[in-house]
Amino acid sequence: MKINDIDVRNYPSSEKVYIHGKLHDIDVPMRRIDLTPTVKIVNGEKLTRHNDPVYVYDTSGVYTDPSVTVDINRGIPRTREKWIAAREDLEQLPAITSEYGRQREADKSLDSIRFAHRYAPRRAKEGCAVTQMALARQGVITPEMEYVAIRENLNNEALGIHSDITPEMVREEVAAGRAVIPANINHPESEPMIIGRKFLVKLNTNIGNSALSSGIEEEVSKAVWSCYWGGDTLMDLSTGDNIHETREWIIRNCPVPMGTVPVYQALEKVNGDVAKLTWEIYRDTLIEQAEQGVDYFTIHAGVLRRHADLISERLTGIVSRGGSIMTQWAVMHGEENFLYTHFDEICEILARYDVAVSLGDGMRPGSIHDANDTSQFLELDVLGELTEKAWAHGVQVLIEGPGHVPMHKIRENMDRQISSCHEAPFYTLGPLTTDIAPGYDHITSAIGAAQIAWMGTAMICYVTPKEHLSLPNLEDVRNGVIAYKIAAHAADLAKGHPGAQVRDNAMSRARYEFRWKDQFNLSLDPARARQYYVESHKAEGDHFCTMCGPNFCAMRISQSVADDCAR
Amino acid sequence: MKINDIDVRNYPSSEKVYIHGKLHDIDVPMRRIDLTPTVKIVNGEKLTRHNDPVYVYDTSGVYTDPSVTVDINRGIPRTREKWIAAREDLEQLPAITSEYGRQREADKSLDSIRFAHRYAPRRAKEGCAVTQMALARQGVITPEMEYVAIRENLNNEALGIHSDITPEMVREEVAAGRAVIPANINHPESEPMIIGRKFLVKLNTNIGNSALSSGIEEEVSKAVWSCYWGGDTLMDLSTGDNIHETREWIIRNCPVPMGTVPVYQALEKVNGDVAKLTWEIYRDTLIEQAEQGVDYFTIHAGVLRRHADLISERLTGIVSRGGSIMTQWAVMHGEENFLYTHFDEICEILARYDVAVSLGDGMRPGSIHDANDTSQFLELDVLGELTEKAWAHGVQVLIEGPGHVPMHKIRENMDRQISSCHEAPFYTLGPLTTDIAPGYDHITSAIGAAQIAWMGTAMICYVTPKEHLSLPNLEDVRNGVIAYKIAAHAADLAKGHPGAQVRDNAMSRARYEFRWKDQFNLSLDPARARQYYVESHKAEGDHFCTMCGPNFCAMRISQSVADDCAR
Repeated sequence: MKINDIDVRNYPSSEKVYIHGKLHDIDVPMRRIDLTPTVKIVNGEKLTRHNDPVYVYDTSGVYTDPSVTVDINRGIPRTREKWIAAREDLEQLPAITSEYGRQREADKSLDSIRFAHRYAPRRAKEGCAVTQMALARQGVITPEMEYVAIRENLNNEALGIHSDITPEMVREEVAAGRAVIPANINHPESEPMIIGRKFLVKLNTNIGNSALSSGIEEEVSKAVWSCYWGGDTLMDLSTGDNIHETREWIIRNCPVPMGTVPVYQALEKVNGDVAKLTWEIYRDTLIEQAEQGVDYFTIHAGVLRRHADLISERLTGIVSRGGSIMTQWAVMHGEENFLYTHFDEICEILARYDVAVSLGDGMRPGSIHDANDTSQFLELDVLGELTEKAWAHGVQVLIEGPGHVPMHKIRENMDRQISSCHEAPFYTLGPLTTDIAPGYDHITSAIGAAQIAWMGTAMICYVTPKEHLSLPNLEDVRNGVIAYKIAAHAADLAKGHPGAQVRDNAMSRARYEFRWKDQFNLSLDPARARQYYVESHKAEGDHFCTMCGPNFCAMRISQSVADDCAR
Repeated sequence: MKINDIDVRNYPSSEKVYIHGKLHDIDVPMRRIDLTPTVKIVNGEKLTRHNDPVYVYDTSGVYTDPSVTVDINRGIPRTREKWIAAREDLEQLPAITSEYGRQREADKSLDSIRFAHRYAPRRAKEGCAVTQMALARQGVITPEMEYVAIRENLNNEALGIHSDITPEMVREEVAAGRAVIPANINHPESEPMIIGRKFLVKLNTNIGNSALSSGIEEEVSKAVWSCYWGGDTLMDLSTGDNIHETREWIIRNCPVPMGTVPVYQALEKVNGDVAKLTWEIYRDTLIEQAEQGVDYFTIHAGVLRRHADLISERLTGIVSRGGSIMTQWAVMHGEENFLYTHFDEICEILARYDVAVSLGDGMRPGSIHDANDTSQFLELDVLGELTEKAWAHGVQVLIEGPGHVPMHKIRENMDRQISSCHEAPFYTLGPLTTDIAPGYDHITSAIGAAQIAWMGTAMICYVTPKEHLSLPNLEDVRNGVIAYKIAAHAADLAKGHPGAQVRDNAMSRARYEFRWKDQFNLSLDPARARQYYVESHKAEGDHFCTMCGPNFCAMRISQSVADDCAR
């Protein structure tokens, strides 16, 4: 499959490899990048040295596995199906449970846009605690846990790099709530991954059609595209028509966990009239989406009516869509936010499908001016209460964070989140470190994201260059993902994640030895690196780059000095 | 003048204004961005509120002053000429002093590419201490010092924002060596600016032709272009033909201080044969360039022969061109680096023209692996010695810094630089926080630059997306400058620079009130912000953006909540 001239079926000089589990019958995908040998001419003789391949984390799913033929009309292979099918704590339902889902299914006019194959949803048997967290607490190392342990370690064992990340350590982190494995039992297509501050920093991308643009096929391509470049999870923020059907297409073709903000769809169901939102409609939406396989829900349950007045002190009020909707609802009805009052029921539903809750920060600052203000931190305390409630139900929890924050206020966000929310993983949007660069907010925010991830944020939500201006196209998604891969990897290096620097070292060695192809192939965006190079070089393999020209290459001179010294 | 479809003669809705000095007859340029009024419909009535204009730092020179007609064949106005002409410590020379400069001047074949008008160079009278540092120490507040004090303060006085930055404070900082005003007496076209950690973070851009590409006209456009986007200083790193003539063109048209690495040209003079480099050729090059008006020289005087062996411990050896040249020279000749042994004579020359020295970090790490290693820090200590030597001659000093540094090692760089180099301003390239993203190194390095600038680096040297791959074109320069404006501004906010947040607040208010034009005009790249917006909007002034669509705009809902609460 080609998207925007990029063949998303493979990475250059790379092979998809699988590492088999020791506890479970699982195959964990990785990408092996093969390198060219080092060639040196010494005294007229050509000496060749083999360079070991580099193993990197691979989010692209079976799309880059040549042994799998993908047909998006049929969906990708359901890798976790057999693990899930083997479980005795789950039951397969005869039909979908939600009222809305049934209506859509019965509507013949939707046949043309419907994903063809329907899978009967699964649910926890009455009384069974089935979430990864519940199982972890019982001492069970699930296939998902072993899978992520292997995945996080890349090729460390073979390289002799010590790592504390073991299946048992994963279990402990999940049991304690310090890490989340978003793994809805109805999304067996998803390859397990873990979000927690002792693991590789993850990045989330957002896609979604709004009333103004986009269509189903474009959204599916965006999902594949985002995974190809390195998105670890994907939020579908659609607010337009046929959300239900679009979502089904994406989930059935999505190799990474998917999140949504259910209130968006609930609001669509009442034609955008906030006053008409009800708990019943919202509840039905949760079930509808949980049975489709959504892995985590952003829920703005921490936005309280009594905090609404505080926004008058702000420069930019509420900039969270979910937060503004729930605040308006609460003020209109003179009642408390129903997501807060019904939070236990929400957790009961989520627990039955192992949907994680991502507690939305409705009061996240939308400007440097509003960063770290009272409304933001009061809400964070509420999110801390809700975390404990969710954990009591065995529901896995993420905490969403800002937003717009100047650098000197980032640390306070991280520290307060850890203490207020009992070490539940932090999942932040950026933060953007200045307001004055629309068109470049992938950069203003990558600066903040790298810092907060280093300090302990487990997942960073990408921002594209179009933020604040318009919806991203495919190139914007690519630019946003790569900016965030950079931030995440910079944080992994700074945190000393085992094995993170192997790729940097391989790149630098290739650079010093003028192995240009290896430099392209080891880079986060091989196609772009190659393109920039080729544009100004006649032939690959020149022993200098255009920066300095043939007489002035520092590395060439440096090598010859090193050779002289060695003689 | 249009470059790449951008009219570099103006910024949208902006006016060039000048603030007159109180001590000196000087006019300090600033850019005033005019805003549209806030319009609100309350009970069917249209209410209008005026919004104050925002004053921003302006590096674009007279290119954006409609009262000046620029002809690059004649050069831009020589603003500082009358201040310099009035000085009694300077003398005008009958002709240029350097041998090479005279040869070039005598060469008729160069007439066609020569900048037409020649100005007789000035030099300190024998025995006179004429640098900004020397004058500052004598208690003199020069026009340059008052100029930068006004410039740094933007419109703070009118806004009632307290600032410690006064002409006297500038004098103190320059006298102590904590700040540098690069202001060669032969570059009167340059608008004074200051580099020091108590001031706005500055950014340097690099241009230059190498043997492979570029021409004179293109280099001049790049200079204008870089200043238009916000470059505070400009380094000409040319290594190709006609360096002497190209430089003259650039300096005569350059409103910002210009730097060079004189050893590049010295090496050209011996046809790239490092063995043939001599102190005499280098010395003549310093004089040649000083008389043309170069404001600061990068000099790799800290690279010592005894440190050459250490590079064998590195993954990427020496990646500084100047550093590798001087190391090779020292190893070849079995002698100490002549820039180190002749450093006092170098300072004597620099002092006579007030050229600042930027002590090059020949041992800057070229990879994450080599960051903060022994060679790097040994050199830093040598730079500290040289700093004191230069100061003894009244020569202003900058210290260059890395390079490639993972985030957790950035702080050590800053702290050691301050202690080893006695608080001389730090001027860093990036640093790049990972090696694995060629094609995106403006981002890998903006992440590091923002952090190190916040910690105290006074000037950051930009990196373009083409770093490591090829020479930047105009769009790459734009992308590099904006990424670094973001890093610099994020650092200014984090440092609490007086008035820095005024622009962010104005932007955020415009955002909250859907004043789209103001958002574009207040942004670092108005053209791009507008372009991204227009691509997906039919008409400006929609009270929502494409992110959420008409029913889901958080800020619209938030405003209506605020209105409800206020009732």
